[in-house]
Amino acid sequence: MKIGALEAGGTKMVMGIFDEEGHLLEDKRIPTRPPAETIPEMIGFFQEKGIEKLGIGTFGPVDLRPDSPDFGTITATPKLDWRNYPLYTVLREALSVPCTFDTDVNAAALAECRLGAARGCENAVYVTVGTGIGAGICVGGKPVHGLMHPEVGHMLLKPNPRDPMPQGFCPYHESCLEGLASGPAISKRAGRDAGNLPDDDPAFTLEAEYLAQMCVNLIMVLSPEKIVIGGGVLEREFLLDRIRKETVRLLGGYIQAPEITARVDSYIVLPELYPISGLIGAWLLGRDAQ
Amino acid sequence: MKIGALEAGGTKMVMGIFDEEGHLLEDKRIPTRPPAETIPEMIGFFQEKGIEKLGIGTFGPVDLRPDSPDFGTITATPKLDWRNYPLYTVLREALSVPCTFDTDVNAAALAECRLGAARGCENAVYVTVGTGIGAGICVGGKPVHGLMHPEVGHMLLKPNPRDPMPQGFCPYHESCLEGLASGPAISKRAGRDAGNLPDDDPAFTLEAEYLAQMCVNLIMVLSPEKIVIGGGVLEREFLLDRIRKETVRLLGGYIQAPEITARVDSYIVLPELYPISGLIGAWLLGRDAQ
Repeated sequence: MKIGALEAGGTKMVMGIFDEEGHLLEDKRIPTRPPAETIPEMIGFFQEKGIEKLGIGTFGPVDLRPDSPDFGTITATPKLDWRNYPLYTVLREALSVPCTFDTDVNAAALAECRLGAARGCENAVYVTVGTGIGAGICVGGKPVHGLMHPEVGHMLLKPNPRDPMPQGFCPYHESCLEGLASGPAISKRAGRDAGNLPDDDPAFTLEAEYLAQMCVNLIMVLSPEKIVIGGGVLEREFLLDRIRKETVRLLGGYIQAPEITARVDSYIVLPELYPISGLIGAWLLGRDAQ
Repeated sequence: MKIGALEAGGTKMVMGIFDEEGHLLEDKRIPTRPPAETIPEMIGFFQEKGIEKLGIGTFGPVDLRPDSPDFGTITATPKLDWRNYPLYTVLREALSVPCTFDTDVNAAALAECRLGAARGCENAVYVTVGTGIGAGICVGGKPVHGLMHPEVGHMLLKPNPRDPMPQGFCPYHESCLEGLASGPAISKRAGRDAGNLPDDDPAFTLEAEYLAQMCVNLIMVLSPEKIVIGGGVLEREFLLDRIRKETVRLLGGYIQAPEITARVDSYIVLPELYPISGLIGAWLLGRDAQ
């Protein structure tokens, strides 16, 4: 049986064809244009391959309430062409196969939990730090939905008094994580592209501090068994170790779990399935579609 | 069948005898003294009543990992007599009945989810704001454990620049929720007992702001279907409405869920089972013990 996987992103759509064992047989990337252009191309690809199930992990926010008339719709996205677009319904009806639908980051969290860096964990968080900051969360081995879905990127933080941009740049919130610590936040603060900053730029000290505050708050709320952090910003691998040290410092010895106090190097980790955690997660979602 | 329930607190032990339908047949409160004095009295009470199962919700932190040799032990508590005390094992062995064990706040969250203010929700948070700040969380209808258990009271917040005590008073963390917003924090900031402050004291504006920051971060991480807030500080019922308004303001319109944007009065609510949410939760835990 062929299983289709779609990781729908704001800039590109990644499609994969997997077998039941999870071997990636074929994949294709296309730029994300308005639905009228993008959707027919995706439908064509999946139809041609004869998939029998489809899993979708998408950018959001999305409506995930099973009893909602808008289930599977992309809601208040800044990408206006996609706002209120019923992605799940359109693909399921066009392809006539069982479909499962979740956020891209929940799909990635599921993949890292089942097969990647958080293998064996029932409760884990996957965070991606890039143009934005998003997170997927598994509890009891399943992605968390609740009222909507996690939006960890907009958690409120305590700005460092030495931060020249303590309010951040999120249009919705003062001092939220994404506004303080996403890639564009680093660039805005530095006055030049973050990609051109040297590793010893003080921007990365602040960056590690903010991501450590995030880790602390995730630990206090969820008590995850593992925190997986990836995304473009973490391609500076030295950041990870600073985040770990700063997390332990901020916890102040309060959480007496040896996984953190003695083995933080295997507690806060990079993803193992990067950069296709989301695509593999979409395959897992598709495999379980009914 | 009689089911025993124990809500083990730092200052008092509340014991209940329930039938299978959840009727409270009898209860008893005793002060929490050292285990050598307190435990035999509790064992005597439960033995005399002929309970066939026992549920325990206890102060913490506790070890809840099912495969841990210290499962059911109270760990790093400041109450030295109880530190490393194997509460679960001692009670289960003395009473020879099936036992279930969790934190007091997870028990209360379970009770409010099944029978109280969050009835019908699978994902909800119960917070108690008093001498300390604790929270229990249900996801998928079950209490969250993870590496340890939630410790929401020590989430890091952004202090208000006009707060005369912006660092809070927690010995472990600067600017954590408990250090900024527990009952003793209000008293310390005001220089007199919080219980004697008039309702229009500015302390309560800060209090509502900090508890609203907590709500925002809970929403961003967990996306709960309901937030239940109780405890001594919330006996000032006007606080609740201020917390709701401030939460909506801080969210800045980012979360477009009508449960929050249009119906926040039924989203952030008082517990319905107060002050025995924890005891009823212990009964639920006991009923399911095997």
